[in-house]
Amino acid sequence: MQTIHPESKFVIVWESLIVLVTLYNYIAVPFRIAFKTSSDGIWLILDIISDSVLIADIFLRFHIGYIDQGAFIDDKHKIHQNYCSKDFKINLIASLPIDIIIRIIFYTTPGYVISILRLPRLLRGFQCLGIFRRWENNVNVNPVVIRMINLVVIIFLIDHCVACLWFFIGNVATISNQSWLTRASLQDASTTTQYMKALYWSITTLTTVGYGDITPTNDLEIAFTLVIMFLGVSMYAFIIGNVASLIANLDANQGRFREKLDQIQAYMRERRIPSYLQQQVRDYYQYMWEYSHDASMELDFLDELPHSIKTRIYLHLHQELLEKVPLFKDADKGFIEDLVIKLKPRILPPNDYIIREEQLGHEMYFIKRGEVIAFSEKTGRIYRTMTAGMFFGEIALLYSSRRTASVKTQTYCELFVLYKDDFDQVLENYPRFWEKVKEIAEQRFQTK
Amino acid sequence: MQTIHPESKFVIVWESLIVLVTLYNYIAVPFRIAFKTSSDGIWLILDIISDSVLIADIFLRFHIGYIDQGAFIDDKHKIHQNYCSKDFKINLIASLPIDIIIRIIFYTTPGYVISILRLPRLLRGFQCLGIFRRWENNVNVNPVVIRMINLVVIIFLIDHCVACLWFFIGNVATISNQSWLTRASLQDASTTTQYMKALYWSITTLTTVGYGDITPTNDLEIAFTLVIMFLGVSMYAFIIGNVASLIANLDANQGRFREKLDQIQAYMRERRIPSYLQQQVRDYYQYMWEYSHDASMELDFLDELPHSIKTRIYLHLHQELLEKVPLFKDADKGFIEDLVIKLKPRILPPNDYIIREEQLGHEMYFIKRGEVIAFSEKTGRIYRTMTAGMFFGEIALLYSSRRTASVKTQTYCELFVLYKDDFDQVLENYPRFWEKVKEIAEQRFQTK
Amino acid sequence: MQTIHPESKFVIVWESLIVLVTLYNYIAVPFRIAFKTSSDGIWLILDIISDSVLIADIFLRFHIGYIDQGAFIDDKHKIHQNYCSKDFKINLIASLPIDIIIRIIFYTTPGYVISILRLPRLLRGFQCLGIFRRWENNVNVNPVVIRMINLVVIIFLIDHCVACLWFFIGNVATISNQSWLTRASLQDASTTTQYMKALYWSITTLTTVGYGDITPTNDLEIAFTLVIMFLGVSMYAFIIGNVASLIANLDANQGRFREKLDQIQAYMRERRIPSYLQQQVRDYYQYMWEYSHDASMELDFLDELPHSIKTRIYLHLHQELLEKVPLFKDADKGFIEDLVIKLKPRILPPNDYIIREEQLGHEMYFIKRGEVIAFSEKTGRIYRTMTAGMFFGEIALLYSSRRTASVKTQTYCELFVLYKDDFDQVLENYPRFWEKVKEIAEQRFQTK
Amino acid sequence: MQTIHPESKFVIVWESLIVLVTLYNYIAVPFRIAFKTSSDGIWLILDIISDSVLIADIFLRFHIGYIDQGAFIDDKHKIHQNYCSKDFKINLIASLPIDIIIRIIFYTTPGYVISILRLPRLLRGFQCLGIFRRWENNVNVNPVVIRMINLVVIIFLIDHCVACLWFFIGNVATISNQSWLTRASLQDASTTTQYMKALYWSITTLTTVGYGDITPTNDLEIAFTLVIMFLGVSMYAFIIGNVASLIANLDANQGRFREKLDQIQAYMRERRIPSYLQQQVRDYYQYMWEYSHDASMELDFLDELPHSIKTRIYLHLHQELLEKVPLFKDADKGFIEDLVIKLKPRILPPNDYIIREEQLGHEMYFIKRGEVIAFSEKTGRIYRTMTAGMFFGEIALLYSSRRTASVKTQTYCELFVLYKDDFDQVLENYPRFWEKVKEIAEQRFQTK
Repeated sequence: MQTIHPESKFVIVWESLIVLVTLYNYIAVPFRIAFKTSSDGIWLILDIISDSVLIADIFLRFHIGYIDQGAFIDDKHKIHQNYCSKDFKINLIASLPIDIIIRIIFYTTPGYVISILRLPRLLRGFQCLGIFRRWENNVNVNPVVIRMINLVVIIFLIDHCVACLWFFIGNVATISNQSWLTRASLQDASTTTQYMKALYWSITTLTTVGYGDITPTNDLEIAFTLVIMFLGVSMYAFIIGNVASLIANLDANQGRFREKLDQIQAYMRERRIPSYLQQQVRDYYQYMWEYSHDASMELDFLDELPHSIKTRIYLHLHQELLEKVPLFKDADKGFIEDLVIKLKPRILPPNDYIIREEQLGHEMYFIKRGEVIAFSEKTGRIYRTMTAGMFFGEIALLYSSRRTASVKTQTYCELFVLYKDDFDQVLENYPRFWEKVKEIAEQRFQTK
Repeated sequence: MQTIHPESKFVIVWESLIVLVTLYNYIAVPFRIAFKTSSDGIWLILDIISDSVLIADIFLRFHIGYIDQGAFIDDKHKIHQNYCSKDFKINLIASLPIDIIIRIIFYTTPGYVISILRLPRLLRGFQCLGIFRRWENNVNVNPVVIRMINLVVIIFLIDHCVACLWFFIGNVATISNQSWLTRASLQDASTTTQYMKALYWSITTLTTVGYGDITPTNDLEIAFTLVIMFLGVSMYAFIIGNVASLIANLDANQGRFREKLDQIQAYMRERRIPSYLQQQVRDYYQYMWEYSHDASMELDFLDELPHSIKTRIYLHLHQELLEKVPLFKDADKGFIEDLVIKLKPRILPPNDYIIREEQLGHEMYFIKRGEVIAFSEKTGRIYRTMTAGMFFGEIALLYSSRRTASVKTQTYCELFVLYKDDFDQVLENYPRFWEKVKEIAEQRFQTK
Repeated sequence: MQTIHPESKFVIVWESLIVLVTLYNYIAVPFRIAFKTSSDGIWLILDIISDSVLIADIFLRFHIGYIDQGAFIDDKHKIHQNYCSKDFKINLIASLPIDIIIRIIFYTTPGYVISILRLPRLLRGFQCLGIFRRWENNVNVNPVVIRMINLVVIIFLIDHCVACLWFFIGNVATISNQSWLTRASLQDASTTTQYMKALYWSITTLTTVGYGDITPTNDLEIAFTLVIMFLGVSMYAFIIGNVASLIANLDANQGRFREKLDQIQAYMRERRIPSYLQQQVRDYYQYMWEYSHDASMELDFLDELPHSIKTRIYLHLHQELLEKVPLFKDADKGFIEDLVIKLKPRILPPNDYIIREEQLGHEMYFIKRGEVIAFSEKTGRIYRTMTAGMFFGEIALLYSSRRTASVKTQTYCELFVLYKDDFDQVLENYPRFWEKVKEIAEQRFQTK
Repeated sequence: MQTIHPESKFVIVWESLIVLVTLYNYIAVPFRIAFKTSSDGIWLILDIISDSVLIADIFLRFHIGYIDQGAFIDDKHKIHQNYCSKDFKINLIASLPIDIIIRIIFYTTPGYVISILRLPRLLRGFQCLGIFRRWENNVNVNPVVIRMINLVVIIFLIDHCVACLWFFIGNVATISNQSWLTRASLQDASTTTQYMKALYWSITTLTTVGYGDITPTNDLEIAFTLVIMFLGVSMYAFIIGNVASLIANLDANQGRFREKLDQIQAYMRERRIPSYLQQQVRDYYQYMWEYSHDASMELDFLDELPHSIKTRIYLHLHQELLEKVPLFKDADKGFIEDLVIKLKPRILPPNDYIIREEQLGHEMYFIKRGEVIAFSEKTGRIYRTMTAGMFFGEIALLYSSRRTASVKTQTYCELFVLYKDDFDQVLENYPRFWEKVKEIAEQRFQTK
């Protein structure tokens, strides 16, 4: 059998199955112990199915590889070692079908004893927490959703277990003397009604609603209630802390954007900036937000990446921009790669000057989005309209010269700038191409 | 009919109307289903009015433009396409007056059936959330207020719907056996009393007050209560998380300022800075806070803006300062624009030296607010008192020289500084004006 | 009468009085309206005293100056204008003793009518909020304490007003039909018991404890309860949000310090740094924390201050250090002032090298705290032990030279460093002193 | 007797004992006052034991040194002074066995009077808070765990004290008239049942569950309940604030990492980066996170440390890397120390270029982890495979030259880079070694 990749579809489906089975055990085992239900019929079938999955999992794990230092390990021996040193023992204990063996040997064992023998199944819970954590990072869903589901499941299981314990304690006391069950006249009610009342008490208490229609009657019940209320406080605080921080994270970005915009607007109101200018500033920030969500982040994140990945991302984004430039036609692939990460983004609003006639130029521009016009400042004549994929100002890379035309944006534009200094720095590492560029520069300068 | 701008007054008023009508539906529909009220009389009139608005909205939307990439799109065809691809279908479903048609055809249909047919109206809720979000960003009200109102409305609607469901469930059970209504002897009470009791239970539970005077009596009611309490916890946590973060944001700025001042005071106490100096530091920060709220923000924000908008803001703020300087009289408009964004703000407390006699000067100053004096360090003679709109030290822009007088603030002052380096850098781009400035410099230097 | 400074002791005492009187009104007025107490005896006396204070305040305000742009304004005319344009009107309305006038004219007016006439007094609450805010910034108490007291007072007043309203509503209903008072058999109880029960209900509900022993009985009471519970949720959320953020701010600094130390320890454990080194790092941070609380803050804060204040603080801290250096004996006061702000702090643990023999030196050192030794690296002979107030390495300011001895710390030391570059920069502005320093340098170099 | 170090094992054990004894007093004293238990038998023995510990502590403190300015003070006289000026008085008051003396003199004193005399023991609580705080910083346990335990203990003690007070008040009222004890028919119940009911009420109220089965019946009880509910709100808010911030801190690092990764993924989805590239970026961040938890932190923290500690840490981490380089064989120990802190870490993913053939080199590399290959770009021939502990590119330290081979990573690698500039800077301080390096450089250059 071949080694399976730990991030393959199959493993994700299989892990979902493990989570489902564990959920079943967490619901069924406490319920069957507390309510002393028989363990036959449908329960028996479900038990056998779920145990089969868990036992199959033990064996399957020997065929699932793992990731170490970024490399996928598929060596059977290493997987074996890794698995045995980690989860094997706990998984084994959690899967041994002692209850089924006992059932076969002593087939009159009462149902709740069998359920007690199934308690080790709950150890699988730890594994499930790990699965949830992995899902958060890998599955293509918003991790906040996964965390929310995780939280809701945990809360429900706590509610459920508390309800079962509450019924169990009430039932124990019913035999000897008064209990919450006798006071609510539930000792002979159907199991459904009993369970619902117990769950009702459990949620009423843990959410601190505390109606008070079911309250503890004897010392044992009071002691249990004390513990639960103590827990309730912590659980509540924990949930509130978690949910609040989830919500805070959910749109932390947008929150920061809003706060910033609020500050800017307050500043402009105070300085009595004319309202048409205020509108322009607001529009600009709105556009930036909608377009890039957090413009400042992009640069930081790309700068952090190792050179190779960064280059690949930049190539993906801008390669075709560079390849259109005749000057770079015969350049090395390495040269283009080195050049591409020198491109600096710039987002401009409509009617903004990019280049002014007669000013000194030290950089060239590539248009990624939007439309610009080149025109004469004196005559107002429009020389050219340029759109996405075009470039201008490339002479500035060869020698600093005064611009021969003004260039202005027509719409919101995303440009990429290449500075002469950066260009020269890259050129240094490509001596043959350097020679050629120098030649072209001299020719152009003379023809000028 | 002409295309309407999406941020025009008319659209804002119209959207308020949509919100109102949707609110009406959210309140009336669940109420009328639960309490099986007749759908005639006043209800019928209100239904017809509100439905007319919704239907009118469907048609009106074809005439309201939208904003794309910072440009207002008023092309009918594009609006049509944009609207159809987005909200048209859902709006249509939410507005079809099936109930009125049914009412006309089968005029004996019971009122609650008609109300059930009105359920699709509630789909408009999504649109309203969008409207609220747009208001936050555009309307000239503190966005926190909008968010608070939004939150309160949502909470109330949840309370209302839960109350209606609670009554509905109680009513269903009343027919067969015991329910919360019969236990509270409300089965024959007036609709008002019934509704208020149901709302009372709903809020008591959701806020976790849980008096316990109205509690579920049968399995259906218990099941409903369980769900509601579960929801209650989340809702509560959600609200607390939201309100807490709203409050935290409300004066995040002031909070940061306070924290900083607290730290500074702790530092000064520890180092035993004399108390008159402590007072001066405190006063300075108080002044900075009151005057600029967050002095550090201003620069960051202006530096982020694209060149054109930044220039316009600076021109608005400082143009008249620059134009008073004789040296810049004949300068280009472009030159002034380039110069104005080089001005650096400086806020000084009373009695602070700006310039000291005999020290080398590399910058000139403009006074925006406050009063300064120029005086001789040796004789103490005051040469000049200067106030807002005046400037000094302009010779330093021409050639570095030792200052001929000391200048000191009299009150809190806001100055703007222009450094020689920045001046020279701008000058480079205006060769003709450069010549002239050089000439003036030489003349002055000789006369000196 | 002379103008009073708004931050003088007298004003603080007077404002405390205003707060007290307003507190009295907030407690007494709702209580007397709800419980229809007579307005004679002790109440009359208290009313007259409190009203006198408020009326006196109106006149006194004309003699209290204010702060504008950092300057204390004591011009009577300006104070008059400023006061009239701000608080005068509201203060006047809140202080008019209509109730006393009515009492004199119609001396049989029932007590609760008189109390209603006193309602405008509550407008002073706004003024009190302002006073609290000013206390936070100016009084020499931890602002968090002031905010906490403020919060507790507001919560108590809300509880109190709700209790009074609850009794009032119960009382109104008692006349016609059943109410919470009749159900709890309180209609004939003493006022104290009635008030306490009402307050008990109010706090039980607002804190969401909700025992349920007092619940609304008629529609009016239910409606009121609904409103209060709605409010309760918000109030609760508000308080929790506030208290949580107060606590978070209370030791935000320490929290950051702890988080940092936790990270550092985790890092060191991971890299298996030997435990004696770990202890040294921990000790160093502990020391830094205890000594300076936030070492990084000091520099930032001082750099932000305007030059004059910064210089005064540095002079206070380090003047005597500099004056001991023979080289600076004949220097200008201005020179010392310029030099002092160039000193850079450095905190070193025991046994740390400051200077190593034979290495090039570019700076001199001043000892602020602790003990260092100068010794020969080769022979190990100790040349000198230096303590607080002493300095070394001053030759490096004159010309870069190799150090002639090593210097090492003996205890934790706080040093101040003066770099040659900074020294030269300051020297430039004092040409005469420059000459002298050059001379000394040449002499020393030749003697070497 | 020798002076004991304040961070020794013995002191930690002893302080645990003090905490235990204080806990005992906090539980026993209020309980015995409220329930008027006899103070004989087991209580007497426990009292004597606990008091012995406290008295022994008073004397022991004179032999425990303290830390001042980073130095351990073991001078008996100084310890004496330090202790007397701080905790001695309060410890003495809290330990005087007045109750035992009274018991000996008047041996018929009722038990609760004796318990009242034991109230000063509770003053030790402050000392315990201090102990907890020290544990947080020094003990090798996650400080969050210590804080959580601290919080739980405080909450329990508050619950306990409130329960005792509640019983006490109920008991006082029982004598004269009705009380909560008589209404619940508990006046003749066993002490256990009474205490549990009281604790039950206390927790029910403080957690705001508020069942309402035990409610105050007379004015005194109502007044007490009011105070407790007021406290309950604050306590609750305090706990929630604390727990929420503890949770937030618990994985603040991971939270920030997740938020960042979420942003990056959003960015990549938006720009339609191909999914294999997305996977590479995600893997890289996963690796960085797992390996270094917060890569950016490392550098900051090390840069902050004083030179001596920083050097020692770097030596521990990298000494063996440097010592393997033949070039540094004869170098000074000081030279290695200075060089080691110039190493810059770099983490690279598989298949990333480190050096490219023919490009100019200015730095050398050390491999800390992972595997790299040196190969010819043209022929593709692999010259060498290098693993952890090896180095390459050392010629670049001697003179800038074009690289003769490309080097590429095979796995995730952790490299350390040494730049020529840093190398030269260190070399300057070691003139003799400088000469030697220059010689070697010249030889190599000629042979080339």
